[in-house]
Amino acid sequence: MKTSALEPTYIFSEAEAKAKSPLAAEFLDERSRLNGIVNEADNKLLKRIYNVDTNAYLEGALPAKTKELMGLVASATLRCDDCINYHVIQAWRLGCSRAEQEEPINVATVVGGTIVIPHLRRAYALLQELYS
Amino acid sequence: MKTSALEPTYIFSEAEAKAKSPLAAEFLDERSRLNGIVNEADNKLLKRIYNVDTNAYLEGALPAKTKELMGLVASATLRCDDCINYHVIQAWRLGCSRAEQEEPINVATVVGGTIVIPHLRRAYALLQELYS
Amino acid sequence: MKTSALEPTYIFSEAEAKAKSPLAAEFLDERSRLNGIVNEADNKLLKRIYNVDTNAYLEGALPAKTKELMGLVASATLRCDDCINYHVIQAWRLGCSRAEQEEPINVATVVGGTIVIPHLRRAYALLQELYS
Amino acid sequence: MKTSALEPTYIFSEAEAKAKSPLAAEFLDERSRLNGIVNEADNKLLKRIYNVDTNAYLEGALPAKTKELMGLVASATLRCDDCINYHVIQAWRLGCSRAEQEEPINVATVVGGTIVIPHLRRAYALLQELYS
Amino acid sequence: MKTSALEPTYIFSEAEAKAKSPLAAEFLDERSRLNGIVNEADNKLLKRIYNVDTNAYLEGALPAKTKELMGLVASATLRCDDCINYHVIQAWRLGCSRAEQEEPINVATVVGGTIVIPHLRRAYALLQELYS
Amino acid sequence: MKTSALEPTYIFSEAEAKAKSPLAAEFLDERSRLNGIVNEADNKLLKRIYNVDTNAYLEGALPAKTKELMGLVASATLRCDDCINYHVIQAWRLGCSRAEQEEPINVATVVGGTIVIPHLRRAYALLQELYS
Repeated sequence: MKTSALEPTYIFSEAEAKAKSPLAAEFLDERSRLNGIVNEADNKLLKRIYNVDTNAYLEGALPAKTKELMGLVASATLRCDDCINYHVIQAWRLGCSRAEQEEPINVATVVGGTIVIPHLRRAYALLQELYS
Repeated sequence: MKTSALEPTYIFSEAEAKAKSPLAAEFLDERSRLNGIVNEADNKLLKRIYNVDTNAYLEGALPAKTKELMGLVASATLRCDDCINYHVIQAWRLGCSRAEQEEPINVATVVGGTIVIPHLRRAYALLQELYS
Repeated sequence: MKTSALEPTYIFSEAEAKAKSPLAAEFLDERSRLNGIVNEADNKLLKRIYNVDTNAYLEGALPAKTKELMGLVASATLRCDDCINYHVIQAWRLGCSRAEQEEPINVATVVGGTIVIPHLRRAYALLQELYS
Repeated sequence: MKTSALEPTYIFSEAEAKAKSPLAAEFLDERSRLNGIVNEADNKLLKRIYNVDTNAYLEGALPAKTKELMGLVASATLRCDDCINYHVIQAWRLGCSRAEQEEPINVATVVGGTIVIPHLRRAYALLQELYS
Repeated sequence: MKTSALEPTYIFSEAEAKAKSPLAAEFLDERSRLNGIVNEADNKLLKRIYNVDTNAYLEGALPAKTKELMGLVASATLRCDDCINYHVIQAWRLGCSRAEQEEPINVATVVGGTIVIPHLRRAYALLQELYS
Repeated sequence: MKTSALEPTYIFSEAEAKAKSPLAAEFLDERSRLNGIVNEADNKLLKRIYNVDTNAYLEGALPAKTKELMGLVASATLRCDDCINYHVIQAWRLGCSRAEQEEPINVATVVGGTIVIPHLRRAYALLQELYS
């Protein structure tokens, strides 16, 4: 299950996300630091899970952009700030408009309820920085 | 917030879904029966919630098809068979291919874990009937 | 932590709930059958948990009626049909009006989202039988 | 669905909550800042959801005080610190006693399990400040 | 990531579980029927997820028996009847005692709350049949 | 339901955990401070819940070590950082190896999905400090 042919084309790099948004920079740096600790541990099953995770968002029957936005739906529905941040940044890097990003957050808030609101508030702060 | 202009165009009717799939028929009939009981109660706030729910899946910054598939992501992530059934049928009525339906289920299973598997098994039984 | 002094006064018995509503009867009979199996197992910690559970709904700083309706909020928010059935029946037995029962379901659906709707549909079917 | 006639009467203002409790002040200020960002975005569906949310806690078949405490049950059951803070402050502003506030937290912890404990610890820190 | 060397040794077969318990038979047959439908669809990512799932319960730093009981903890905590059934049957096939099976259910009920009770009731019915 | 005879034997004290790991120290100190506030409130039902919680992890049909690791499964599955920290520290104090600690995290991530990953990242940072 190689992934290369289906790798999406990013319009912006992680570095550009960090340059544009202090919230993105803080999140990506901490994520990178902690992933370093996880990688060092070299847990076989975990590596397999990380690999499946990467494969879930490649170009497929739906475009990678749509799949990242679906990752955002799942993350907002399950109310995980780190996961929301990650998919918002990925969708921005793939060229999604701000309006396109607000749609999955709407769906997640309708399906998942007002308990999602504290998380969407923080997501909107990130969106504001990335799309300013 | 009127909805008429943004109503999606369905390729198939609910009746066609029921004719094609016994599982869809059983689900839609029971849903309709119970919604009748809810409607009779005429709870104002609940009507408002139903209305917002309808608005969440209209044509917008993203096509209604994509938003139905996002509803499927949220439903599978939160493991609600009735909600999964509903969005699978809606996406089928809007002309989504079977491959397009499998993508949101994949995303939900990766993000939500193997606890989603019993629900995707039942979703696949419905997909098999609708796309046979 | 004895419970006797704080036992709420039921206006209706379980038998009356069963006589009034086939849905209540089916639920209570199955619950009773399965609790019999659990009791036979005589698991000490589980008995302790059952005991704490009973204590949570006694008369206290808030009336037992209100606490049963709060149990209904928690049950609907976490989307557990059996738990919803149980608290609806208990609240009915304590004399809550139908309108009072609809309020916690509304709160749960707003906070918990439309994913609660399939469960409230079934709750409304039970309410219809109990309050007809 | 106008809300004015059913607006609850607050005994204390938000400013009084902030003067009484540093934890309340920090939470309310951050919430207000982020809601400002959300409001600027002017997302139609989201405004509708905020509006339904407001309506859920008005005077109705149950008093607004009770409904705020039910919001607290739902928030604690779903383990959302921001939501817990909000409903604790609202219930305090409406004149609920500290003992009345502890009851919904008890129900949520019994129904939702010990996973709620880290959140109730933080809720108790807020209660301590508001009711000192 | 081959699995053969770490395959646990089952004391009982699935057929023996089905012969012993009507509840196990009904569950395993339906699971097998639905897995057949999923397999036919031949979704690459899903196969990968199934494969990771299998690897999670092999002999490792902890014995397979313990890991199956941990699967039971996760399943009961997330309140999935099908998953509970599966891990109870697997743990039985690996030779866990009934008392060993009750421990993870206790942990899940303490951590996950009384919302787990309807599921443990059904789990106890299965345990009763398997260990009679 | 006295607990003394079944108290597990700790190899390391809480103080040793704090001396070894700054993350453990920060967590345990804050937990202790907040538990002080909860204890002062002297809520009867809550004390009962704390007591049941303690009983859930004593020596029983399974060793206390295994039950702490099961608490870790439940905590990671429900994605509670504080609970994860607590059980990781307890399991370390009871002499579990690092490899034994990674197993329940694996099970929780497979069952609970990639939404668990941000939490396991933080768990690995704690593991790194405790087992360095």
